[in-house]
Amino acid sequence: MDLTSFVTSLGTYFGIFMGLMIVYAFLSWRAGNNVVYYPNKILKGLEPLEGINKSRNPFIWMKVALVTSETEVIALSGVDTAVYFVFLSTVLSILVLSAVILLPVLLPVAVTDERVVKESLTSHYNQTVVDELQKLTMGNITEKSNRLWAFFVCCYWFSLVALGLLWKACKHVSWLRAEALMDPNVKPEQFAVVVRDIPAVPLGETTTEEYVHSYFEAIYPETYYKCMIVTDNRKANRIWEELEGYKKQLARAETVFQMSKTNAKPEGTRPTIKTGLLGLCGSKVDIIQYYNDRINETVTKLEAEQKITQSEKQQNAALVFFTSRVVAASAAQSLHAQMVDTWSVSPAAEPRQLIWHNLTIKYFERELRKYLVNAVVALTIVFYMVPISFISAFTTLQNLVELAPFIEPVVRIKALRTVLEAYLPQLALIIFFYLLPKLLLYLSKLEGIPTQSQAVRAASICLNTSIFQWSMCSLELLLVELCTEHSS
Amino acid sequence: MDLTSFVTSLGTYFGIFMGLMIVYAFLSWRAGNNVVYYPNKILKGLEPLEGINKSRNPFIWMKVALVTSETEVIALSGVDTAVYFVFLSTVLSILVLSAVILLPVLLPVAVTDERVVKESLTSHYNQTVVDELQKLTMGNITEKSNRLWAFFVCCYWFSLVALGLLWKACKHVSWLRAEALMDPNVKPEQFAVVVRDIPAVPLGETTTEEYVHSYFEAIYPETYYKCMIVTDNRKANRIWEELEGYKKQLARAETVFQMSKTNAKPEGTRPTIKTGLLGLCGSKVDIIQYYNDRINETVTKLEAEQKITQSEKQQNAALVFFTSRVVAASAAQSLHAQMVDTWSVSPAAEPRQLIWHNLTIKYFERELRKYLVNAVVALTIVFYMVPISFISAFTTLQNLVELAPFIEPVVRIKALRTVLEAYLPQLALIIFFYLLPKLLLYLSKLEGIPTQSQAVRAASICLNTSIFQWSMCSLELLLVELCTEHSS
Repeated sequence: MDLTSFVTSLGTYFGIFMGLMIVYAFLSWRAGNNVVYYPNKILKGLEPLEGINKSRNPFIWMKVALVTSETEVIALSGVDTAVYFVFLSTVLSILVLSAVILLPVLLPVAVTDERVVKESLTSHYNQTVVDELQKLTMGNITEKSNRLWAFFVCCYWFSLVALGLLWKACKHVSWLRAEALMDPNVKPEQFAVVVRDIPAVPLGETTTEEYVHSYFEAIYPETYYKCMIVTDNRKANRIWEELEGYKKQLARAETVFQMSKTNAKPEGTRPTIKTGLLGLCGSKVDIIQYYNDRINETVTKLEAEQKITQSEKQQNAALVFFTSRVVAASAAQSLHAQMVDTWSVSPAAEPRQLIWHNLTIKYFERELRKYLVNAVVALTIVFYMVPISFISAFTTLQNLVELAPFIEPVVRIKALRTVLEAYLPQLALIIFFYLLPKLLLYLSKLEGIPTQSQAVRAASICLNTSIFQWSMCSLELLLVELCTEHSS
Repeated sequence: MDLTSFVTSLGTYFGIFMGLMIVYAFLSWRAGNNVVYYPNKILKGLEPLEGINKSRNPFIWMKVALVTSETEVIALSGVDTAVYFVFLSTVLSILVLSAVILLPVLLPVAVTDERVVKESLTSHYNQTVVDELQKLTMGNITEKSNRLWAFFVCCYWFSLVALGLLWKACKHVSWLRAEALMDPNVKPEQFAVVVRDIPAVPLGETTTEEYVHSYFEAIYPETYYKCMIVTDNRKANRIWEELEGYKKQLARAETVFQMSKTNAKPEGTRPTIKTGLLGLCGSKVDIIQYYNDRINETVTKLEAEQKITQSEKQQNAALVFFTSRVVAASAAQSLHAQMVDTWSVSPAAEPRQLIWHNLTIKYFERELRKYLVNAVVALTIVFYMVPISFISAFTTLQNLVELAPFIEPVVRIKALRTVLEAYLPQLALIIFFYLLPKLLLYLSKLEGIPTQSQAVRAASICLNTSIFQWSMCSLELLLVELCTEHSS
């Protein structure tokens, strides 16, 4: 693979990108898809693409996306999206501000030197791509040349730009978060803390709820509001899902019934169902009547199960609510017990953000899991060569044919072989980088982290570290791999 | 030096210990020294050695020390002393409980084997002490002997004893601290927090005090009580010390005047002083009149200086007081500002415990100092060989004479030479271990730690690490040093 082929490959990717963008533009342009592409706006009762003559141009959303102010973004999608945009724009600014100085200065400095040409005369390899690309880099500067000073100074320029912009972004994100916390539209989770590792109920009290209640009321006599104990409601959940299923079926049956009321037959046809296996056998009954009976039955069962769950299935975790935001924020940061493995407290999150089954994991188990997961992540980062070698084993056609001889006939087709050779390595790497965050997120959840967003944050820190390290090495490896394969 | 000489050396130390103890017993026995030996009891208005017929036995204090209960210790000397006693008794219990099993089992197992004897036949060195001592240790077990299992099992016994007793001690100390915190005799520092890194006063406010006041009143509207800004009162302190000096002189002069009022001369002699250099020249004046004038003068100066200090020399640190203990404890653990380098908060300590000049060090300087000090401590621990070699250079008489030839005449005296050779190394090590904690405490204060007790704790952690490592190595080195010197 020479430089032309490399550029062709890049061009292909750009082509795919453009194709996908055009598909997106046309799909989001069709009014029928609005519920898919603009759910937030519809939920907030706004008109999608409000104020835009959308029939004119399917690409108008790009202009809208560029001119949308931060306040509008926060109003529509929340602070997290705004923070993500700050991050993206900072990275873009760093790239642009560096490129403005570095490209015009360093590229000519590198290209006009001749180390690569000189060395290739004495070299035995035919590493054309590496050589072509190296002509654009510091690798083309002859040893002890004064030109190195240009790279040295530009290194400082890049550092200054990166530090300055990151500092600005950090302050801005901090300000965004503070604004969100001070928002007059208070959120329930701002008044709550998550309490874990509630010790066994002592003799004087009857339930965990009463115990938590008396414990926190003693510490915060004026601002304590109430507590909610985490319960093991897997069984109740199953019954509730069953109930929801019946309700959906009922709604569907009623719609069918309504639609059957035509002018010709105003009383309609009541739909029927067979009660046996998969609705194929058994006696025929009226669907609406049948599901109504089922719903009544399940509601009674659910209520009974909920009562049992509330009284008997209380776990060792709770949500404690206060009447003051300041007290809740302060409580979430304070120690509440002498021993570190009891009454551990953390800030609350939205109910859907909480990983409920992680809340009941005990302190020592959490610590143990943390160490184990950290060890696994550390091993993954240190021995990054193992998965990369594993992928390399599959990504060279030669090895693939050796491993699975039955694909040989496919490989023999010349055209297919070229395509496979060009895109197989990239495809494997794309799959790998798609699976990696999933693995890391799974690991952080395994750690016993209490909320979804914290788990994502923990995973993305690991992810960034690994990607930084891996992308450096794997891309180089990939290039070398490709070159050696083609030249051999 | 053979084993006999080693035992003699140990005996000498025991003799010194007994001598010092007897001196202590007799000194503390004399009623005139009570103010030196029992200051806490006298301050609390108790009779020293209350209820003990002290004229009988000067060693009765030992019995008293052994039977004093923990509650009495806390009442007399505070929780810290009780915690120290828990630590001492735990160490003693570990030693005794281990020795009860280990000595009767392992000593015979080791002594009856013969590795050392066998090896000394083939060895070229004459390391008698090391050999004699090694006969009592695992070093005397022949390779792959089944006797090693005894050491293996005893290792587990020791670990179990140590872990069990340390866990018990930890829980007990935690209980002691909690009791002290819940004591109904509340202490002022339990209602206060130390605030550092107060940012520059914004335009609306006039002084730092008003700024801190409005800041904390907004966060804790109901429980905020007041604030005290740390001021730079070095100048006021100097004037106050001057004033105290004059007051002492006045009291002394008045006592002299009172004592001069004998029956023969009831009006007494008013003492006089010369005002010039060192009371040697100048005009003679009445001392009492002179110091009264001086005191009045200094009091005016002090009041003026105090006013200036209060208004103009406010620093960027403060003590904030609350009306509730719980709020103060919670506030000391919470973040109070968006940026980490402003409004940092920590628990308050007694005024005499605060290291006032450390309070005004800014956040980034503190962080920098922390890293620098940690680096120095890490270097000290890793390169522990350097100070030990340095000491070794002085502790062998031979080297000492080479370094300082003028002491040769002293060394020529045979008796003095023997004494010096026997005790010089130990003396040097004692001095070294006396200076080490001072260095570490100095380093932790340099770090910018806000209270004395925290600095002591930080230093003692380093100290224990280093002592553990150093004592292992230095004692071995010392033994080898002594042996080689004597055998050479």
